[in-house]
Amino acid sequence: MAGDWVLGVDIGGTNVVVGLVPAEGGPAAGVRGRAMVGGAEASVMVEHIARMTRDSMEEVFQAHSGGRVVGVGVGCPGDLDIAGGSVVAAHNLGWFDVPLRDLMSDALGLPAVLENDANCATYGEWWQGAGQGFRTLVGVTLGTGIGGGIVLDGVLFRGASGTVAEFGHTTINYTGRRCTCGNYGCLEAYASGPNIAARAREGLEAGAESALAALVDGDLDAITAVTVYEALVEGDEYAHEVMVETARILGVGVANIINVLNPDAVVIVGGVTRAGDHLFRPLRSEVRKRAFGRSEAACRIIPGALPETAGVVGAAGVFLSEASRGD
Amino acid sequence: MAGDWVLGVDIGGTNVVVGLVPAEGGPAAGVRGRAMVGGAEASVMVEHIARMTRDSMEEVFQAHSGGRVVGVGVGCPGDLDIAGGSVVAAHNLGWFDVPLRDLMSDALGLPAVLENDANCATYGEWWQGAGQGFRTLVGVTLGTGIGGGIVLDGVLFRGASGTVAEFGHTTINYTGRRCTCGNYGCLEAYASGPNIAARAREGLEAGAESALAALVDGDLDAITAVTVYEALVEGDEYAHEVMVETARILGVGVANIINVLNPDAVVIVGGVTRAGDHLFRPLRSEVRKRAFGRSEAACRIIPGALPETAGVVGAAGVFLSEASRGD
Repeated sequence: MAGDWVLGVDIGGTNVVVGLVPAEGGPAAGVRGRAMVGGAEASVMVEHIARMTRDSMEEVFQAHSGGRVVGVGVGCPGDLDIAGGSVVAAHNLGWFDVPLRDLMSDALGLPAVLENDANCATYGEWWQGAGQGFRTLVGVTLGTGIGGGIVLDGVLFRGASGTVAEFGHTTINYTGRRCTCGNYGCLEAYASGPNIAARAREGLEAGAESALAALVDGDLDAITAVTVYEALVEGDEYAHEVMVETARILGVGVANIINVLNPDAVVIVGGVTRAGDHLFRPLRSEVRKRAFGRSEAACRIIPGALPETAGVVGAAGVFLSEASRGD
Repeated sequence: MAGDWVLGVDIGGTNVVVGLVPAEGGPAAGVRGRAMVGGAEASVMVEHIARMTRDSMEEVFQAHSGGRVVGVGVGCPGDLDIAGGSVVAAHNLGWFDVPLRDLMSDALGLPAVLENDANCATYGEWWQGAGQGFRTLVGVTLGTGIGGGIVLDGVLFRGASGTVAEFGHTTINYTGRRCTCGNYGCLEAYASGPNIAARAREGLEAGAESALAALVDGDLDAITAVTVYEALVEGDEYAHEVMVETARILGVGVANIINVLNPDAVVIVGGVTRAGDHLFRPLRSEVRKRAFGRSEAACRIIPGALPETAGVVGAAGVFLSEASRGD
């Protein structure tokens, strides 16, 4: 049946994913992903995205005998001017002062909204994923960086300037590890993908025994969070230790969130959730130690349900939510 | 002129304060305070409060040629069941499973609401104090413990179970100082009144030179946060160091709040704000280092404007806010 669709675009540090989401809700269809072109101008990436979108529409409209796209939501990392629709600075992408919302709108001939990528992923999980039905939902996104979002009574909370839930740069150890942001002891300095790898590497350099070194043929610089996970799955004791420590540190960060926001649920989004109980058991145990009893009892800590498409679904959802506010 | 008033009751670990607040807003009148009776049953304290209330009403109604009290808001520390109106556990008061809202309502013959004391203080600052006009306001209360509150669009945010903004037990150094809650590195373990004193004492025991020791006739156990403040005012270098360190650590906590909630303002409530620039300058400087630039720029960090009565005014305001929701 032909219907209304919203395009979701999820721009990340390494990949961009697009997909069409039914305006009445549902999973993303015609999902297309591709690697980001390192250092590419935003206008070049917008052309790529427009091409992916046309492929996606062709596939979806063929399967549904027609259809219509009513708008586009764009999720992007970095420092954004939400009201102005522009990327002020996205260091990982090399984009500065890019009017991304209007570029996308012009390229596709559709109304567009721009939103922070982690906000989109959180909203996607609230709208169609693991966060459905929760009044106060917090999302924590784990990847190259650590971010998040807050959905209150079904509305993305934006604070004073659209820069809420920057959990990666909350301090959990003010005398601790140096962070890429220049400070010491940020959550991200311990538990982002690259820092999980860095901590694993440091232990090996200090003499820890592990199958990890063999997995990367002795090239410790080649260790990633994924390598650590693979060693863990193969029963490596040291990789397990690194994961448990990561989980406990994430537990400190999640306990802080719970003590501040007293949410109904915290949904954890990102590849590291594949570690399952290896992650969630020590994480929940640390939260039980540190969170206020009544708040801990009220809060579920759950993995996201849309591992590949939370950002796409959420970006589309944010477009609809903004469009309905504008009515 | 005779008018409608709301009684505000602010129960603290050491004092209880009552006052009448005009229902249309304004400062508290007929304010009465007294020391809490150590270990007293709640019913005994309720009798004391009822007596203070009668004195307060007599004074205010005489001055205004009559008047009417329409209800009572009660602020209380500890673990509260807000919906049920009861104190589940207030360790500092020795109260467990006390139906405080109904005790107070019966004693005064007035409808009553119960709310967390730090929530009340924050709401009071939003309604009549330094937080007026801010859409997203966070209060941080500094005293024997550290707490806070969150007001969003004029409504006290309560989360899933009414236990939001427990800033004192957010972790800023997970390998750090032991906290009374049993964990390590809570903000409160560094920056509450007793812990400011403890840190000052530890430095003296380690050989720091200071006029502080003389101020307490060599009895280091007699040092309090107030003594540290007095030494600071008299130009003591070591007391200044302790205050700057306290301010920086509070800055870490406030930066975390800003990175999570992106508020329009953070209002700091409590006696320690008397330190003025000695507190606020290093605190703001630490926040500038650690908070997300756009969020930091959007946020004012200000002292409360109702040093003695924020809790009383806020408790009365919460009663009115709840009454209007119930209409």
